[in-house]
Amino acid sequence: MPVEFKNRLPETIRWKDGKLFLLDQTRLPHEELLEEHHNAEEVWHAIQKLKVRGAPAIGVAAAYGLCVAVREQTGLALKEFRERLRLQAGYLESSRPTAVNLAWALKRMLRMAEHSSLESSSGLYQELIAEAEMIHAEDQRLCLRLGEHGAALIKNGMGVLTHCNAGAMATSGIGTATAPMYIAHSRGVRFRVYADETRPLLQGARITSWELQRSGLNVTLNTDSAAAHLMSEGLINLVLVGTDRVAANGDVANKIGTLGVAIQAQHFGIPFYVACPSSTYDPFTSSGKDIVIEERARSEVVAFDATVVAPVGVQVRNPAFDVTPHELVSGLITEKGIVRAPFREGMHTLLGK
Amino acid sequence: MPVEFKNRLPETIRWKDGKLFLLDQTRLPHEELLEEHHNAEEVWHAIQKLKVRGAPAIGVAAAYGLCVAVREQTGLALKEFRERLRLQAGYLESSRPTAVNLAWALKRMLRMAEHSSLESSSGLYQELIAEAEMIHAEDQRLCLRLGEHGAALIKNGMGVLTHCNAGAMATSGIGTATAPMYIAHSRGVRFRVYADETRPLLQGARITSWELQRSGLNVTLNTDSAAAHLMSEGLINLVLVGTDRVAANGDVANKIGTLGVAIQAQHFGIPFYVACPSSTYDPFTSSGKDIVIEERARSEVVAFDATVVAPVGVQVRNPAFDVTPHELVSGLITEKGIVRAPFREGMHTLLGK
Repeated sequence: MPVEFKNRLPETIRWKDGKLFLLDQTRLPHEELLEEHHNAEEVWHAIQKLKVRGAPAIGVAAAYGLCVAVREQTGLALKEFRERLRLQAGYLESSRPTAVNLAWALKRMLRMAEHSSLESSSGLYQELIAEAEMIHAEDQRLCLRLGEHGAALIKNGMGVLTHCNAGAMATSGIGTATAPMYIAHSRGVRFRVYADETRPLLQGARITSWELQRSGLNVTLNTDSAAAHLMSEGLINLVLVGTDRVAANGDVANKIGTLGVAIQAQHFGIPFYVACPSSTYDPFTSSGKDIVIEERARSEVVAFDATVVAPVGVQVRNPAFDVTPHELVSGLITEKGIVRAPFREGMHTLLGK
Repeated sequence: MPVEFKNRLPETIRWKDGKLFLLDQTRLPHEELLEEHHNAEEVWHAIQKLKVRGAPAIGVAAAYGLCVAVREQTGLALKEFRERLRLQAGYLESSRPTAVNLAWALKRMLRMAEHSSLESSSGLYQELIAEAEMIHAEDQRLCLRLGEHGAALIKNGMGVLTHCNAGAMATSGIGTATAPMYIAHSRGVRFRVYADETRPLLQGARITSWELQRSGLNVTLNTDSAAAHLMSEGLINLVLVGTDRVAANGDVANKIGTLGVAIQAQHFGIPFYVACPSSTYDPFTSSGKDIVIEERARSEVVAFDATVVAPVGVQVRNPAFDVTPHELVSGLITEKGIVRAPFREGMHTLLGK
C-alpha cells in the first residue's frame, strides 16, 4: 500500500510468526481490534459473521486460514496431510457461497499442494504459507494496478457514488472500487464520494465513509434509497462498485442494492463501472442466473444491535447479493485495464481466460 | 373504518371532550401510547418529530391542533380571535414543508372562520371543532372510497410492493396506499405485500409491516435496496405507494426512495400506482421542480437509537422526500376513481380542480 494511505488505515489481515490476525470489521468504526484466529473454526466464523469481508480479503484470509487449519498436522504422513488439507479447504469454502475469491484462493492453495515436489508435510506447510503470502502480496499489488486503470475515470468536480464497501477494508490493499478514488485523490483530483449506507449491515456507513474520511477524501453518507434523488439532482457523475463474482457474460453479483443503483444510473445516463480483479471473474459461471445468492438471517433486518425495529414474527426476505445484468455495466475495471462489452471476449483477450 | 379493521388497529387521532389525543408513532411497534396534546407547541413538535405522520393524518391533526391552539382564547373579541387563529395556523404550518395536506387543512379551517356569520369567539370556536371533525370524518370515508377504486388492481397471487407507510397509521382511516390492500383482503383476494423498511426512520418496518400483519394480511419485510432484486425474481406485480404532494402535471413527492422504486418498476415493466386523495393534489404547484424537499437531521442516518453506526463528523445528505416524474406513474388512485396520463386534464375532469 502506498505510504500515504498505509499510515492512515489499519491492516485488515496480518500474518506474523505463524499466527493469523484479522481486523474485526463488525466493530468498525468504533474499535480497531486485530484478533488472532487459532483454528479453522474461528476463521470459518470470522468469514461467516463478516468480521473479515469483501471478496478479495476473504480470499486472502481463507488462504492463511488453511495454513492455520493444518498448522498442528505437520506430523502426519504426506498423504494424510494432503487429505486433511482438502477437508479443511472444503470446510472453509462453506462459510459463504457467493464470493468467488474464497473458492479461488482455496483451490489455488490445493493445486499448489498437489503439485509440490516436496516430500515432507512440514516442508509442504512452509510452501502453503509462502503461497498464502503470495496471494496476499498479489492482492495488494492488484489494488494499485486496478486503481491506476480506474483513476482516469474520475475528473475534477465529479460526484462518485459507491455502494457497500469495496474499499481498503475489503482487501489487503487500497480496495477495488475505492482504488481509483485513492489514486485520483493522491494525484490532486478534487471530487466528492457519496457512500450508500448499505443496509442491512451498513458497510457503507460503518466502513466506507470511515476509511475515506480517515484518508482525507471528501465523502458524504446517504441512505441507499436517497441515491436516486442525488442522481436526479445531478450530483452523481459516476458509479463505482465492487463485485463478489462476475459471470462469463459480464453479469455482476454484488452486495444487495447494486442492481437498483445500476438501473437508476442507466435511467439518468450515468456511467456504471465495476472494479473487478481478474480473480473475481468466473469464466465457469456462464451467466448471473447460475450464481447462488446467499439469503442471510432475518435478525439483520429486524433489529439494530439491541434495538428491535420490526414486529415480532414478521416474515423477512434478506438476500445478501443481487445480480446486475451485463447490459447495465459500462465497464469492468481490472488490474490489466478496463474491459467493455462484449465482456466474454474482452476478458478473454485481456486475461487469457 | 370497517369493523373488521377497526378492532385490530389503534386510532391515530382522537378528539374527545375538547381534548386532542395523538398516537405516538415513534414508539410503534413496541408501544401504543395515545398522548394528550395541550397546546400548539406540543402539536407542532408532534408533527415535526413524526409522532403523527402521513400526509392525511397530519392534515387532521393540524385541524384539531388549531382548535387546541385557540381553546383558551375564546374570551377575545372576534377580530383578535381571528387574528390569533391566523398566527397559530401559520405556526402549525411551519412544522413540515412538503406535505400539502397540512397547509390544505389549515387553509380550510381559516377560510371557514373568515366566512362564518357567527358573531362570538366561542361560537366560532365550536364551528372550528365541527370543521375539524368534518375533515376527520371525510378522511376516513376518503380512505374507503380510494380503497374501493384501487382494490381492482390487486389480483389473486400478486406480490404488491409498498414503500414507507401510507397505511392506516398515516391517516385516520384504512390508509391510502394500503386501502386497496385492506379492501381486497376483506374480499378474499390472496396476495402478498412486500414492505420496504424505509430508511432512515423505518416506517415500513415499524409501522407498515406491523399494521398489515396485525390485520391478518400476508406481509414480508425487506430492506429498501432488496426491492430491485425481488422485482428481478418476478415476485412483484404491482407497486402501490402514497404521496405527500402531487403537482399539477402529475409529478409525485413522496418518501425518499420512491423515485428509485419507480425507476426500477419501469425497468421491469411493473405498474406503479400512487394513492392520491384529492386533497393531496396541488394544482398550484405546476411541477415537481417547485416542491420544497425537506432535508432532515443527520442524526437520523448516523445513529439508531443509542447505536452510532457512522464515523464521528461524517458529512450526511438526508433528504426526506424525492420527486417521481409523472412519466413513471401508471395512475393516481383518488377517492373518485383512477386517473391516468395526462394527469392535469384527468384530475381537472375528475375533481374539477
